[in-house]
Amino acid sequence: MSDRTWNVYLSGEIHSDWRQRIEAGTREAGLPVVFSAPVTDHAASDDAGVGTLGDEPVPFWRDQMGAGVNAIRTQTLIRAADVVVVRFGDKYRQWNAAFDAGCAAALGKPIVTLHDADLDHALKEVDRAAQATARTAEQVVDVLRYAISGRLP
Amino acid sequence: MSDRTWNVYLSGEIHSDWRQRIEAGTREAGLPVVFSAPVTDHAASDDAGVGTLGDEPVPFWRDQMGAGVNAIRTQTLIRAADVVVVRFGDKYRQWNAAFDAGCAAALGKPIVTLHDADLDHALKEVDRAAQATARTAEQVVDVLRYAISGRLP
Amino acid sequence: MSDRTWNVYLSGEIHSDWRQRIEAGTREAGLPVVFSAPVTDHAASDDAGVGTLGDEPVPFWRDQMGAGVNAIRTQTLIRAADVVVVRFGDKYRQWNAAFDAGCAAALGKPIVTLHDADLDHALKEVDRAAQATARTAEQVVDVLRYAISGRLP
Amino acid sequence: MSDRTWNVYLSGEIHSDWRQRIEAGTREAGLPVVFSAPVTDHAASDDAGVGTLGDEPVPFWRDQMGAGVNAIRTQTLIRAADVVVVRFGDKYRQWNAAFDAGCAAALGKPIVTLHDADLDHALKEVDRAAQATARTAEQVVDVLRYAISGRLP
Amino acid sequence: MSDRTWNVYLSGEIHSDWRQRIEAGTREAGLPVVFSAPVTDHAASDDAGVGTLGDEPVPFWRDQMGAGVNAIRTQTLIRAADVVVVRFGDKYRQWNAAFDAGCAAALGKPIVTLHDADLDHALKEVDRAAQATARTAEQVVDVLRYAISGRLP
Amino acid sequence: MSDRTWNVYLSGEIHSDWRQRIEAGTREAGLPVVFSAPVTDHAASDDAGVGTLGDEPVPFWRDQMGAGVNAIRTQTLIRAADVVVVRFGDKYRQWNAAFDAGCAAALGKPIVTLHDADLDHALKEVDRAAQATARTAEQVVDVLRYAISGRLP
Amino acid sequence: MSDRTWNVYLSGEIHSDWRQRIEAGTREAGLPVVFSAPVTDHAASDDAGVGTLGDEPVPFWRDQMGAGVNAIRTQTLIRAADVVVVRFGDKYRQWNAAFDAGCAAALGKPIVTLHDADLDHALKEVDRAAQATARTAEQVVDVLRYAISGRLP
Amino acid sequence: MSDRTWNVYLSGEIHSDWRQRIEAGTREAGLPVVFSAPVTDHAASDDAGVGTLGDEPVPFWRDQMGAGVNAIRTQTLIRAADVVVVRFGDKYRQWNAAFDAGCAAALGKPIVTLHDADLDHALKEVDRAAQATARTAEQVVDVLRYAISGRLP
Repeated sequence: MSDRTWNVYLSGEIHSDWRQRIEAGTREAGLPVVFSAPVTDHAASDDAGVGTLGDEPVPFWRDQMGAGVNAIRTQTLIRAADVVVVRFGDKYRQWNAAFDAGCAAALGKPIVTLHDADLDHALKEVDRAAQATARTAEQVVDVLRYAISGRLP
Repeated sequence: MSDRTWNVYLSGEIHSDWRQRIEAGTREAGLPVVFSAPVTDHAASDDAGVGTLGDEPVPFWRDQMGAGVNAIRTQTLIRAADVVVVRFGDKYRQWNAAFDAGCAAALGKPIVTLHDADLDHALKEVDRAAQATARTAEQVVDVLRYAISGRLP
Repeated sequence: MSDRTWNVYLSGEIHSDWRQRIEAGTREAGLPVVFSAPVTDHAASDDAGVGTLGDEPVPFWRDQMGAGVNAIRTQTLIRAADVVVVRFGDKYRQWNAAFDAGCAAALGKPIVTLHDADLDHALKEVDRAAQATARTAEQVVDVLRYAISGRLP
Repeated sequence: MSDRTWNVYLSGEIHSDWRQRIEAGTREAGLPVVFSAPVTDHAASDDAGVGTLGDEPVPFWRDQMGAGVNAIRTQTLIRAADVVVVRFGDKYRQWNAAFDAGCAAALGKPIVTLHDADLDHALKEVDRAAQATARTAEQVVDVLRYAISGRLP
Repeated sequence: MSDRTWNVYLSGEIHSDWRQRIEAGTREAGLPVVFSAPVTDHAASDDAGVGTLGDEPVPFWRDQMGAGVNAIRTQTLIRAADVVVVRFGDKYRQWNAAFDAGCAAALGKPIVTLHDADLDHALKEVDRAAQATARTAEQVVDVLRYAISGRLP
Repeated sequence: MSDRTWNVYLSGEIHSDWRQRIEAGTREAGLPVVFSAPVTDHAASDDAGVGTLGDEPVPFWRDQMGAGVNAIRTQTLIRAADVVVVRFGDKYRQWNAAFDAGCAAALGKPIVTLHDADLDHALKEVDRAAQATARTAEQVVDVLRYAISGRLP
Repeated sequence: MSDRTWNVYLSGEIHSDWRQRIEAGTREAGLPVVFSAPVTDHAASDDAGVGTLGDEPVPFWRDQMGAGVNAIRTQTLIRAADVVVVRFGDKYRQWNAAFDAGCAAALGKPIVTLHDADLDHALKEVDRAAQATARTAEQVVDVLRYAISGRLP
Repeated sequence: MSDRTWNVYLSGEIHSDWRQRIEAGTREAGLPVVFSAPVTDHAASDDAGVGTLGDEPVPFWRDQMGAGVNAIRTQTLIRAADVVVVRFGDKYRQWNAAFDAGCAAALGKPIVTLHDADLDHALKEVDRAAQATARTAEQVVDVLRYAISGRLP
């Protein structure tokens, strides 16, 4: 049977340790997964454009530059992913996470959403396009373990 | 020269009159545009599942049913659109609008975003994937008039 | 707003009047829908190959000929459809209906399944790939009415 | 000449040893094949949703959860496959096997069906979309040996 | 039920009246079909390049020019077709017909081949990629009648 | 036989009357062609962004805004075209024309280039991706007449 | 700089040593190429169906079986190829080679044709869809050496 | 986290050392990048056709032959690339660079343009389709470092 390596992209919230918990959990479970993600250092991400291409005083264009450079990373990694996990936290609007989910859905990638129940109604369109909605990082690990190895917790 | 009819999908905010203003503006301008949109009656949209497929007491599943039925409409119309306009207002999280934008981008559809400047930073990824960012419905009309007829205001 | 005509393909069971009921219901509702379907005359469908291309005594090849000629129709109509409705009845194995659903899913077409609850477990993979699961032809009409016109029953 | 590794997905029946026989046969034949498959532990497969994402008392939703989690696996592996073998046994309705075949066909993947002659008529649409119909696991090995190495038995 | 117009491309042999017979037959049958075809005037087809773009004395380049101009027509019409009928006669090598069939197959278009039995072995790969193999123009009409209207002769 | 309307996109040079000559020629020839093109009013095209979305003092961003709005038009029309004609004149660098040709080639659209022989070497990659290279607008008309109606001049 | 391995599929004539000559030439040139090809043992290829799936007395169906099993190999390898070389000899009609070229063209794969000048006119459509037409196996090696390493002979 | 190797195609100007500077910079930065490029030896590139396929006295056809052979390389490598960097210098018209950018855009590949500010207006359509516009090779390295490793200079 296949021992393929799975590519999993971890999109969304960058202010909690959910990525670390998923990575630790899959490592413990011995799963052949390679994770990728957007740049999760908020300040670096905001400076992605002006830090590489030169200064820009106008906030809108500064953001356009930064979002363009970030997109080189995120679009490449999402297209290379087998599965896209999208995390929504209780802060910020995280429209980029929903945008990533839309891209993933249109590209036919399986999606796992990760968020608390109080966001359910607001996220119903995204959850409907997902194959699974998890409440905890541990549940995402359980889903990946099952999808990859067929083992339940 | 072509007198093709353009299909424009109007995604996003359902609590202000931006769609009516764009439609009125393009009608005044005599542009050959057919608009489509999600169901904009909030209550009907929330009841799309239980109102057609039968009752469901659990909110999460009720939302799954509703989002599924709505997706039959929205996915069909987005795929049939030439241009997708996505409006973000100052209320609600509107993750479905960002999700639509992600779908449109992955499908190679031109996108016009419509929102106030105070949302610029939060929407930078979506704006970067768009061909234009407008501040008013009238600007969207101006963009459509130019794209379709080549005339500036 | 758009008055586009929707193409809806009705796949599956050919021994009950579900297609007629859906067509009658949408006509009453005044919906701009054009329906298409496989050939629903069972005997004609079985003879599609030998009735057009010449006799064939071996059942396997007779079926290959027939299925090929039927596929000219079904593959063309499914690819031209906006929405695919798939009906599973209580008789026969209807693997072709599930096959059509798989094609539709891979092509990104919204799917509505139509079957009784006692088939739920056996059809769980197909239902999961669908946007809606209906129990009656009337519910399918309700789903189409909502998806097309935004009106609930 | 190429010594590429072939990815073969084995879809369908989970209550007989056909997968083991194909794997043993290709191993004996020294073929460079990596096999993948759905989770074949029936109980685990049925619990894929509730076993990872939390309990759900309603059978329909329990199945939706389970089918979603299983789809993460199956959709990823089918898309990564070079060839899809689909086995139909004499028990159960196996609509998921026919659904997989429909996906594979729409994605342009070569298909090999494996079933007894008494299912021929019911499976005629699926067989027609396949490149080969085998009666025994050994024949599937023979087909793979030929397709991969050019050797006949 | 749908009264869609079917686009059928008639590829291959240009030295017999098979196209006229198919067109006459479908007209008699009252089928909503629009036919398209390569330019069937052999001399014009050979001069497609030099007759439009200027003289060219070297035969190879003269053919490149002609084949390019012909491809503007054939590639456009094949991509716009629902069904591709490919006729092989007993003269000439007709590699362009087989090439068209390869294009059609890769684009997922249903194919009907039309040729005598003595070409069966040489055409086995093309016939295998086709949904039907007919011996006479009348059989092609019968196949189209069935596929479009569900009626057998 | 088909009387389909052909969509032809006329990309490139905006400072000579080549589009008018092609349109006049096809009209005289009675060809069923609908033409589309970028906005050919140079000043309007340069102001496409600031004229619709508001002023922008920095030339680079002014150009980004303008190119974005123009792309809504050009990308939509190129994707809707059957054939793309690309004209290179002796002035300006016309990188956008070559860019359009690259898009058209990747989308599988037939291309006709139109330019003088002294540009041949510089345009060799674009000409190689084209189905025909014409020297005069009249030759483009001849190519279209042949491709559409099968008639040589 | 990249040391990627190139996948080159060698389609067509199976009765001369052109494949061996190309392989020997690229080995001598030290090029990182992996070749693939259809089964070139004529008898085995004709028996691909009956030799694996069981006997079949009718020649047409025997060919259908064989062509299906061969297609598992050829379709997989063509889709995995970077470049497709298609050889036409002076014997047989080799419609499968032209069919392969059509598939490759529709899939956007670069094609190199290999044949004598006396076949030029008959092969003009295939040559036009190719990036290069070679007369000898050595020229194909030269083309591959240049395309892969940038070195001319 | 992923240590994937990134494939970056370096399109455009062949008369300055920008490729060497980008390669040196990424090597110093320790980035896992494999670069690919067109053949940058101008004389070899011009002789790609006649140097491999035999002499051709007419310049137009000589260029067609050369551009075809070069396209085998460039089309393969662009399709295999994650990111396409396109350099425009102050000499030559470099329509092939703009053509490559058009291909890359239509294929959904992230693009980085590299050119001086005095070309901004002429390149506005290409820059708009790019995710970043750099002025120096060092800035391209900075963009790649960020996109691949998340580190700013």
